[in-house]
Amino acid sequence: MKEKVFRDPVHNYIPVEDELIYDLINSKEFQRLRRIKQLGSSSFTFHGAEHSRFSHCLGVYYLARRVTNIFDKKYSDIWDSNESLLTMSAALLHDIGHGAYSHTFERLFETNHETITQQIILSPETEINTILRRVSPDFPDKVASVINHTYANKQVEQLISSQIDVDRMDYLLRDSYFTGASYGEFDLTRVLRVIRPIENGIAFSRDGMHAVEDYIISRYQMYMQVYFHPASRAMEVLLQNLLKRAKYLYPKEKEFFTVTSPHLIPFFENRVTLEDYLNLDDGVMNTYFQTWMQSADKILSDLASRFINRKVFKSITFDEKDLSNLEKLRKIVKDLGFDPTYYTALHLNFDLPYDVYKPDVQNPRTQIEMLQEDGSIAELSTLSPLVHTLSGTTHGDRRFYFPKEMLIKDDLFAEAKEKFSHYIKNKHFYNPRE
Amino acid sequence: MKEKVFRDPVHNYIPVEDELIYDLINSKEFQRLRRIKQLGSSSFTFHGAEHSRFSHCLGVYYLARRVTNIFDKKYSDIWDSNESLLTMSAALLHDIGHGAYSHTFERLFETNHETITQQIILSPETEINTILRRVSPDFPDKVASVINHTYANKQVEQLISSQIDVDRMDYLLRDSYFTGASYGEFDLTRVLRVIRPIENGIAFSRDGMHAVEDYIISRYQMYMQVYFHPASRAMEVLLQNLLKRAKYLYPKEKEFFTVTSPHLIPFFENRVTLEDYLNLDDGVMNTYFQTWMQSADKILSDLASRFINRKVFKSITFDEKDLSNLEKLRKIVKDLGFDPTYYTALHLNFDLPYDVYKPDVQNPRTQIEMLQEDGSIAELSTLSPLVHTLSGTTHGDRRFYFPKEMLIKDDLFAEAKEKFSHYIKNKHFYNPRE
Amino acid sequence: MKEKVFRDPVHNYIPVEDELIYDLINSKEFQRLRRIKQLGSSSFTFHGAEHSRFSHCLGVYYLARRVTNIFDKKYSDIWDSNESLLTMSAALLHDIGHGAYSHTFERLFETNHETITQQIILSPETEINTILRRVSPDFPDKVASVINHTYANKQVEQLISSQIDVDRMDYLLRDSYFTGASYGEFDLTRVLRVIRPIENGIAFSRDGMHAVEDYIISRYQMYMQVYFHPASRAMEVLLQNLLKRAKYLYPKEKEFFTVTSPHLIPFFENRVTLEDYLNLDDGVMNTYFQTWMQSADKILSDLASRFINRKVFKSITFDEKDLSNLEKLRKIVKDLGFDPTYYTALHLNFDLPYDVYKPDVQNPRTQIEMLQEDGSIAELSTLSPLVHTLSGTTHGDRRFYFPKEMLIKDDLFAEAKEKFSHYIKNKHFYNPRE
Amino acid sequence: MKEKVFRDPVHNYIPVEDELIYDLINSKEFQRLRRIKQLGSSSFTFHGAEHSRFSHCLGVYYLARRVTNIFDKKYSDIWDSNESLLTMSAALLHDIGHGAYSHTFERLFETNHETITQQIILSPETEINTILRRVSPDFPDKVASVINHTYANKQVEQLISSQIDVDRMDYLLRDSYFTGASYGEFDLTRVLRVIRPIENGIAFSRDGMHAVEDYIISRYQMYMQVYFHPASRAMEVLLQNLLKRAKYLYPKEKEFFTVTSPHLIPFFENRVTLEDYLNLDDGVMNTYFQTWMQSADKILSDLASRFINRKVFKSITFDEKDLSNLEKLRKIVKDLGFDPTYYTALHLNFDLPYDVYKPDVQNPRTQIEMLQEDGSIAELSTLSPLVHTLSGTTHGDRRFYFPKEMLIKDDLFAEAKEKFSHYIKNKHFYNPRE
Repeated sequence: MKEKVFRDPVHNYIPVEDELIYDLINSKEFQRLRRIKQLGSSSFTFHGAEHSRFSHCLGVYYLARRVTNIFDKKYSDIWDSNESLLTMSAALLHDIGHGAYSHTFERLFETNHETITQQIILSPETEINTILRRVSPDFPDKVASVINHTYANKQVEQLISSQIDVDRMDYLLRDSYFTGASYGEFDLTRVLRVIRPIENGIAFSRDGMHAVEDYIISRYQMYMQVYFHPASRAMEVLLQNLLKRAKYLYPKEKEFFTVTSPHLIPFFENRVTLEDYLNLDDGVMNTYFQTWMQSADKILSDLASRFINRKVFKSITFDEKDLSNLEKLRKIVKDLGFDPTYYTALHLNFDLPYDVYKPDVQNPRTQIEMLQEDGSIAELSTLSPLVHTLSGTTHGDRRFYFPKEMLIKDDLFAEAKEKFSHYIKNKHFYNPRE
Repeated sequence: MKEKVFRDPVHNYIPVEDELIYDLINSKEFQRLRRIKQLGSSSFTFHGAEHSRFSHCLGVYYLARRVTNIFDKKYSDIWDSNESLLTMSAALLHDIGHGAYSHTFERLFETNHETITQQIILSPETEINTILRRVSPDFPDKVASVINHTYANKQVEQLISSQIDVDRMDYLLRDSYFTGASYGEFDLTRVLRVIRPIENGIAFSRDGMHAVEDYIISRYQMYMQVYFHPASRAMEVLLQNLLKRAKYLYPKEKEFFTVTSPHLIPFFENRVTLEDYLNLDDGVMNTYFQTWMQSADKILSDLASRFINRKVFKSITFDEKDLSNLEKLRKIVKDLGFDPTYYTALHLNFDLPYDVYKPDVQNPRTQIEMLQEDGSIAELSTLSPLVHTLSGTTHGDRRFYFPKEMLIKDDLFAEAKEKFSHYIKNKHFYNPRE
Repeated sequence: MKEKVFRDPVHNYIPVEDELIYDLINSKEFQRLRRIKQLGSSSFTFHGAEHSRFSHCLGVYYLARRVTNIFDKKYSDIWDSNESLLTMSAALLHDIGHGAYSHTFERLFETNHETITQQIILSPETEINTILRRVSPDFPDKVASVINHTYANKQVEQLISSQIDVDRMDYLLRDSYFTGASYGEFDLTRVLRVIRPIENGIAFSRDGMHAVEDYIISRYQMYMQVYFHPASRAMEVLLQNLLKRAKYLYPKEKEFFTVTSPHLIPFFENRVTLEDYLNLDDGVMNTYFQTWMQSADKILSDLASRFINRKVFKSITFDEKDLSNLEKLRKIVKDLGFDPTYYTALHLNFDLPYDVYKPDVQNPRTQIEMLQEDGSIAELSTLSPLVHTLSGTTHGDRRFYFPKEMLIKDDLFAEAKEKFSHYIKNKHFYNPRE
Repeated sequence: MKEKVFRDPVHNYIPVEDELIYDLINSKEFQRLRRIKQLGSSSFTFHGAEHSRFSHCLGVYYLARRVTNIFDKKYSDIWDSNESLLTMSAALLHDIGHGAYSHTFERLFETNHETITQQIILSPETEINTILRRVSPDFPDKVASVINHTYANKQVEQLISSQIDVDRMDYLLRDSYFTGASYGEFDLTRVLRVIRPIENGIAFSRDGMHAVEDYIISRYQMYMQVYFHPASRAMEVLLQNLLKRAKYLYPKEKEFFTVTSPHLIPFFENRVTLEDYLNLDDGVMNTYFQTWMQSADKILSDLASRFINRKVFKSITFDEKDLSNLEKLRKIVKDLGFDPTYYTALHLNFDLPYDVYKPDVQNPRTQIEMLQEDGSIAELSTLSPLVHTLSGTTHGDRRFYFPKEMLIKDDLFAEAKEKFSHYIKNKHFYNPRE
């Protein structure tokens, strides 16, 4: 095949030489990713972040291609170059099962994008599966097992999924680029210069310790600054309450939902096929929400309207011990006519920026290993005091969300709202009676 | 109002100090722009170019703010600082009437985004109008007239709309950033340093000639490289034929379209209100096309599927004199079972990169004027040989589009396809009998 | 004065509106800074880092101008705008006393660039002083006291010199840009958005905590990755030994040094005037070293040649406890004919990335304070776990330098060199008998 | 050899795998390039442009490496991969003979950096020659002939020297980066994607026409905006007059020059060896000029002081027809006590941005050829109207330089200066009597 190329603002040019890869990209299941935003509700906070999962998946493929090219050329003694096409395919397809507003949607409808990813790769109905089978009958299984963490070759698996993998490397750079928040930038070229296949996985030459450290810190900062942004989470919370309301109404309003949002019916009725899942994307969901704005149900139409027109809820942080005290706020919200089930929410966001390998925990992490001159290995956090600080501890916050109206004291309810404000100090829940 | 700020990857931070501007941004008509891609079908070619009209409009406002800040501070002798808020408002709202896939859509349904822009600003039904009226009862009219080129103060008008205005400056930088094509970059800071209000419009200090020249060339290159890209136009052509088919089918299939694409009915029936127009956006259109894929009409479902799954038509360029000879190609296409009305298309794209003022033509252009040390004015193309070359001449090409299948000679029709290929040389129409 | 502008790759354009500033820049003492590299010996490691102190000083002025413009405009209630010109002048001149290869030179000749800075500002002989006096007779004293940390207004002083000041902000960005090491980048625009004058100094709005944290980490990484780079320190060590040898030889070889390096004589004889100091710059020093390559003294000519032709010493790190054990290495070096006084060196580099205010230590630091919504102050390291980790602890290493020849085992001395290598493991001193 | 790497701000990382290349870089003749600025006097205008010829030569090597890597891998049918090391060596060494302030210096002392380049490569005395001979006895000759345009393989020669070669590509990007003037940027990655070896030279795939066009325009803009900047040429003119004065004085002041500027004596006496030439660099020259500031000759000391302290001459443009009329200005300059031989100058700067191959002219240019799908070739200017405009025509200006004092009318000579100003309009010579 003549080399094809994609213009990419993050990696400049993304070349494709393998017909397999090119055909996967052109499959309908992969093209669907153009209609799903990479960062979901974050685009409401960072208006530049309207990039799609399509662009991210291409980027992950590109990094896999760069790494396997290096491994093929320089480390063929310890790296099996027959694994390169598999690695690139798994990289390209690792997120193929993502859907619209996945995080929120999955919680409400008990779907799971990782399961869907496996189905898309393994179902003989999909174009993806058909294309993969051209390599060999068991190639779809191999790709699926890499993504599923059960593939025998740990080098391949760790490239695709570990604490420093091609997925994370691409999304940090890409999300930085499109949000405009520079925190996610790190020295990709240097990391690619020091990455090494070792006996049972991946390591990094110790010379590159600071580049790897910088990557860990960049990831931490992106979580704190971008992924956990309170305004984005306000949109998630709104979406969650909106879908919760629709689910609640459905049994009583089947007709309304069948007309306005046909592709959601299987989800309301809990009988979802792969095809149903693939019918949904950001545009379809937003179209449905726009029709819901005409609903006779005041809560449904109001929440839909708030979501479409970006009327975000406000929030405060709170300490764990105050969880039950938030009831006081919910009561005031209710007194003002807002049903707290749909007009308030808790949102907890915590990330574990790095951890060493802990065989006893569920989903133990593969620690990052640095290869020293004499061939010995040192775990990253033993070399970097900054990574040591982040290691094994979670970072994030707890937020209580409520309507913006609670803070605008220009109406009949000024007194109740004043009372509400007494519980807030420096944007944090404060119990005045303490 | 406390200053608000938007993180923007192109301009870094976009501050908003005026409550008017902030409220306009938060209106539902402005938020709708989040759901409309700035470059429409170009995002199918440049996968990073998924940025919205929302981000562009914010960027145009930002540049208007920078220019008027400079004018207020340095040139208050010749610039009326009372015009600054008006300038910023017009900048923010200049594209408020844009809809989904505007170029193609408008041609088929005879709508016009400029007319809609005027309506949104002037209709007492809109949030935009209500907010503008807070300044003064005639403020909406003033904003509309600036956008409409009828405002008395030519300084304001030329800032918003001329051959070098805040609109173009933002879209060149923004489209460059998101496509990843660097051709549109120019030295914005320098241009802003040399921009000057003059008696009856805007000029640029002659010191900045090369920065202005560079801007003109950048714009030319973006047209040639990005906006006129054959693959993007292939998607436009596909969309046009798809909508043409739907329009043709509608009278016979009212039921089908009413269920699958309710918000398009007023357009099919040619009785469109402002509200109907505002109901459409990229997501709604794509959702409809996805449902059309289930149509019993083979042409409609096939074209919808090609659009959604990005199966682009191929194209060749042709000379004007060969227009009638293309019939030979259309015939072969038809022989292979593709209705040429829906499976071929002509697409002509020409741009006039720059022109001097020509009072006798329709829509004469405001030429770019350079201010010399002694106060005299020199028109740009008299100073720059490169701009002189581009001045007054159009650049672009004519393309004939057809299904990709015509070039794949692996089936029963290989012979007819071979004949088709005889008319193509270096991707250009070639008449072998000449 | 008509506004002047300097094209700067880091800050794009640096405008100058004040005639005072413009005249200071054009003084001969300031122009001298063009002939002194900002990073001294680092340019031998990072070949792009050939930028001068001139460019850094302009950059510091620029940042002072941006901050004081913001303070003048937004915080005139708590900031005295009469201090702005003083702040900008002190920013511009804060490094005016720097000389060629300052760090090494000062240690050997007991000069001090801070003292010289004071002299240049205060001596009636200099153009700088003459220009400053045009403002008022005591203006030179005020500028000197700001730089000297004795000025009464702590807002001004902290802008110029604290743990987050305009000097550091510029050098991190500038050294990043010119070395090509991206580690020093941080979100300058955000930091400038959150900087605030407070009663007795400078604070940052708590919203900007992550931008300030990022700045501290960037600075730490630049120290580890760039400023403490072993190869740059190898050049410092070489320079130090070269000058040590010259100083030792001078009493015996006055004639030679008078002819080859006239402007160093006052330094050899310890009778230095301000004029003598100003006569030296990088080019003069390198010119002298080039003539020393012709010296009859083998050590002087060899070291000069190594320096000019960049034949760096090699190094290993060592633990404090092994300090005396290094004698074993020095002995082998000596056995191979290299005088250890001139062919080996210790080099310790440690930085304290951040510290809280500790009134009892010498030169206590001004801690970084974050301003909360209710007006209260929180010290940075109480908010950021990463800064907390770096706070109060020094980071760096101890290195032992020796000739590269010790590691090339292709000659008569292979056996001795082998012995030498036994003391090295993973580039670290290792005592095999332990 | 273990791969070495240089951190480069323009190309990020520059890897070196060949011991030959690494040793050439470490030779004393190549290290000398660290002490010579790439842009000479331009650094007085663009203070960031302090980058050395060392960095440019590394960059040219890097681009040669990238191109030959592509050729080795993809076009080994038409490209002889044995030529790759030669190409990289010639790229690295193409400017090895450059000296301090070459343009001005060469004109006055009739040296020639191209001749010196040949000598350094061919003289058995140099380290460069010794290293090259390790490949084969005739390798130095081959490298020299590539640089000398006499090598048989035109592919190699055109890569090193043509209208689009690795030299120009690096300097445009590098000079853009360090000056901060973005005009020189072009899409390097795209150009490298479309470059092709052909039968008797180099061509570019027609797909890349706009990238090549953009490169030509970028080069044109860099000449107009950066390389021909009037202030930089003012420094050249000053330097030229300073050296002219020294040359004039030398016969009468041998003692003075022998003490102050020993390495210039062979040049004054016109008996220069290669070693003499290599002794000079920017630092040595500036050091000499600093000592000349103490000369008893008022003109020499004044011009030296103006150069060192950057007191630039002012200039106006003039038309060719006015050449003789400039005598009127020179007379006024003389009347005010400035010897016009040393205090005025003409400076003509013209560039031919592109030309087609013209076999009859001296040094005919190799035109840029675009390779079409059917294998035919089209010359660039037949495809690009912008390049057509620039083709075959020179661009630049004529300037007359004089002391800044002529424009400052605050003294006894105000009347004469007023007369001087009558000849100037919009910074151009104007003959009032016309």
